[in-house]
Amino acid sequence: MRLYFYPAACSIADHIALIEADLPYDLMPIDRDKRTRDGRDYLAINPRGFVPALELDDGSILTENLAILAHIADHSGKLLPEDALGRSRALEALSYMATTIHGGLGPFFKKAAEAEQTKARNALTKGFAFLDEQMGEKPFLLGQSISIADPYLYWCLLAAAQFEIAAPERLQVYFERMNQRPSVVRARAEEGLSPTE
Amino acid sequence: MRLYFYPAACSIADHIALIEADLPYDLMPIDRDKRTRDGRDYLAINPRGFVPALELDDGSILTENLAILAHIADHSGKLLPEDALGRSRALEALSYMATTIHGGLGPFFKKAAEAEQTKARNALTKGFAFLDEQMGEKPFLLGQSISIADPYLYWCLLAAAQFEIAAPERLQVYFERMNQRPSVVRARAEEGLSPTE
Ligand SMILES: N[C@@H](CCC(=O)N[C@@H](CS)C(=O)NCC(=O)O)C(=O)O
Ligand SMILES: N[C@@H](CCC(=O)N[C@@H](CS)C(=O)NCC(=O)O)C(=O)O
Repeated sequence: MRLYFYPAACSIADHIALIEADLPYDLMPIDRDKRTRDGRDYLAINPRGFVPALELDDGSILTENLAILAHIADHSGKLLPEDALGRSRALEALSYMATTIHGGLGPFFKKAAEAEQTKARNALTKGFAFLDEQMGEKPFLLGQSISIADPYLYWCLLAAAQFEIAAPERLQVYFERMNQRPSVVRARAEEGLSPTE
Repeated sequence: MRLYFYPAACSIADHIALIEADLPYDLMPIDRDKRTRDGRDYLAINPRGFVPALELDDGSILTENLAILAHIADHSGKLLPEDALGRSRALEALSYMATTIHGGLGPFFKKAAEAEQTKARNALTKGFAFLDEQMGEKPFLLGQSISIADPYLYWCLLAAAQFEIAAPERLQVYFERMNQRPSVVRARAEEGLSPTE
């Protein structure tokens, strides 16, 4: 499997998940002009232009973070909570993060007007409070073990920090803990990010 | 299973999917003050406040449209494309619609400023063009049979029509065809919508 990514973009969730799931992968960075490191036009690979995209072993391209994370779980038999509703809860958390959190970060990525950013900041604060409550005293969002929801939550917190959006303290502690995790350390190194950033 | 919904909201996707999957369900409407028809506070049921929410037979509450639709497919063994990648393609399409299309409709629901609506309209036009291309000459978004992606696409087109966002002609034809489908006719009637609206 080959992951198309930008450094520190939401594609780092898939990168971490591939490592956690122990799947073989290689990495293909895209630059801001949407060219792959080997000189191809990324829009010919994913016409919608977003990262992540995952190239499967048969050459087909799978897009959308949530779908790629679910594919990694299905393909490896790992990274899903074990209870009966585990798969549904993982999709629920991923969908919430993709819509409310990632979607809510839009005004910051787009450098929108101050008023729009203020509204978005309030919505994100509420969104992170819900995730904090869901985490509770558990070590991972959905339970005692890491699931596909965690690498995406890691990225949400990374992006929030970048825009100085305060997350609840418990999520900050979780973020620091994730930063020390070997899969995260390795993914960051492979994307050229500083180890302690 | 009990579906919490507003009439004509995105919860109609789950309503249609429950009918298509032939699962027993009952319906609990919410009013704009977030009270259920039987007088309960909806925020005590789903603190995040959104519809849809699905109450499972053990009383647990599942939220997020995509997660509910995937649950309906898993629970019924229906509504997924049959090829190897079927499940991944369904999640990919649902995630794209939840983020780019549904998320892109935000400025219209929020009655945002004209400039923001114009930008959003352009992004939606592009988004629908991608979906149109993916549909191609197939009768349904992902193939010859209806999948969980279709009821959500139906709602995206319903919402787009409401805000006079033009969809490509092929998707309009699809929308008219979906409007005639017994599951859609029944869901609309059960939500109190006009038959031809
Ligand atoms: N709905 C997509 C959104 C992905 C997305 O927003 N990716 C960002 C990076 S975090 C991106 O590629 N933005 C476009 C760009 O930077 O050119 C998904 O969930 O995968
Ligand atoms: N991320 C949620 C979003 C659901 C959503 O936006 N629902 C709308 C109706 S289409 C809603 O409940 N809006 C809040 C309100 O109307 O009070 C999902 O995918 O289920």
